[in-house]
Amino acid sequence: MRVVVPFDATTPKTRLAPVLDAAERDAFARRMLRDVLDAVGGLSQTDAVDAVDVEVVSTAPLDLATDGERDSGGSRRDRPDDSPVTVHVDDRSLDAVVDDAVAETVGSGDGAPLAVVMADLALATPAALCRLVRTDGDVVLVPGRGVGTNALVVRTPAFRADFHGTSYLDHRRAAADVGTVEAVDSFRLSTDVDEPADLVEAFVHGGERTREWLTARFELAVDEDEGRVSLARR
Amino acid sequence: MRVVVPFDATTPKTRLAPVLDAAERDAFARRMLRDVLDAVGGLSQTDAVDAVDVEVVSTAPLDLATDGERDSGGSRRDRPDDSPVTVHVDDRSLDAVVDDAVAETVGSGDGAPLAVVMADLALATPAALCRLVRTDGDVVLVPGRGVGTNALVVRTPAFRADFHGTSYLDHRRAAADVGTVEAVDSFRLSTDVDEPADLVEAFVHGGERTREWLTARFELAVDEDEGRVSLARR
Repeated sequence: MRVVVPFDATTPKTRLAPVLDAAERDAFARRMLRDVLDAVGGLSQTDAVDAVDVEVVSTAPLDLATDGERDSGGSRRDRPDDSPVTVHVDDRSLDAVVDDAVAETVGSGDGAPLAVVMADLALATPAALCRLVRTDGDVVLVPGRGVGTNALVVRTPAFRADFHGTSYLDHRRAAADVGTVEAVDSFRLSTDVDEPADLVEAFVHGGERTREWLTARFELAVDEDEGRVSLARR
Repeated sequence: MRVVVPFDATTPKTRLAPVLDAAERDAFARRMLRDVLDAVGGLSQTDAVDAVDVEVVSTAPLDLATDGERDSGGSRRDRPDDSPVTVHVDDRSLDAVVDDAVAETVGSGDGAPLAVVMADLALATPAALCRLVRTDGDVVLVPGRGVGTNALVVRTPAFRADFHGTSYLDHRRAAADVGTVEAVDSFRLSTDVDEPADLVEAFVHGGERTREWLTARFELAVDEDEGRVSLARR
């Protein structure tokens, strides 16, 4: 199965500016991306798909082998599980990238399904992604917090993406117009790491690289009055 | 299966004070409770359990038949699916209530399992709860946002509750000391409606009564700069 992971390599995670500076946001976004790629690659170790062809569509050149360094793009990295990851640079809108990928894959001769997984799903695991790719439906959606769309599987070439604003509701309507639509109920896939309050989820439940990066800089803090838990700088 | 739903009928949902006044918080909390009870009752229509015995443990007397009215407690309501709901008044701590329920149920002669489901899981559905009660393990946990515990199934009488602070991590450790522990990956069950930002999830994905109450008072608002979606008063 082809899995597209769109990545903003230019100004990633701007809504984390209250707690991370620009260099930190850049490094943290790459950590999350690599955890997402590991989780997606792990799909090939399950019986949910025959093989997985992972493609990062990045707004700028990107070297996946290192944090914070960049190369001329088009890099390919052989991962422990042998799922190849390809990087393509494409600075068009997310909608244009996804629509083109749908046309190329679902609209092609064999009509293979396409999966799209956001690069900030730091809590993603192969098991959670298994449930996504195993769910039947012409369009299968994972809602994000705040009515976004965190991941989807498309099996009809008639679907068009619209990632602006209330995209989960918009995608549901658009999908219902062209086929069957299903949703996947997963905390791990519904938690995109966008805002400072989301960091605590990545700290506790995130992938290995994400947790390592966060635990070097933050610790859990409990507000005794409110019972609320957040992260505090070490 | 015995399902305990703890309910704060005294000062519910104080962290929603920035957007709901005290009377609204009271009414809204009851709407969510009734949606949770419907979802729990719906378990009896599945093959996950033979029957479901639902018990609200309320900090104060509570009449489930009406919104905002109270009676002398101990009320029983026959619901469409015929799952009886019992209300018990108990103003002790959540830990004491859950520990007693574990002792009475799991520690009793037949060692039946006990489920605990929080009253503010407005997104709960029978399907999501099915996944909870069908997951094997001496203790099965559903993490809440902010490292809380939103629901659990207990199958060992040695487990003790500790709902303060980082309860999900504390419960994992306590459970691992006395048996096997599993977690359920569900956006619907991990979303407790505690803070203003959570209301948008209840508005979009919540149960019927919750959505009806919210849509009468709020509408979706998209911040065009940030792409963030929230609720605005009508």
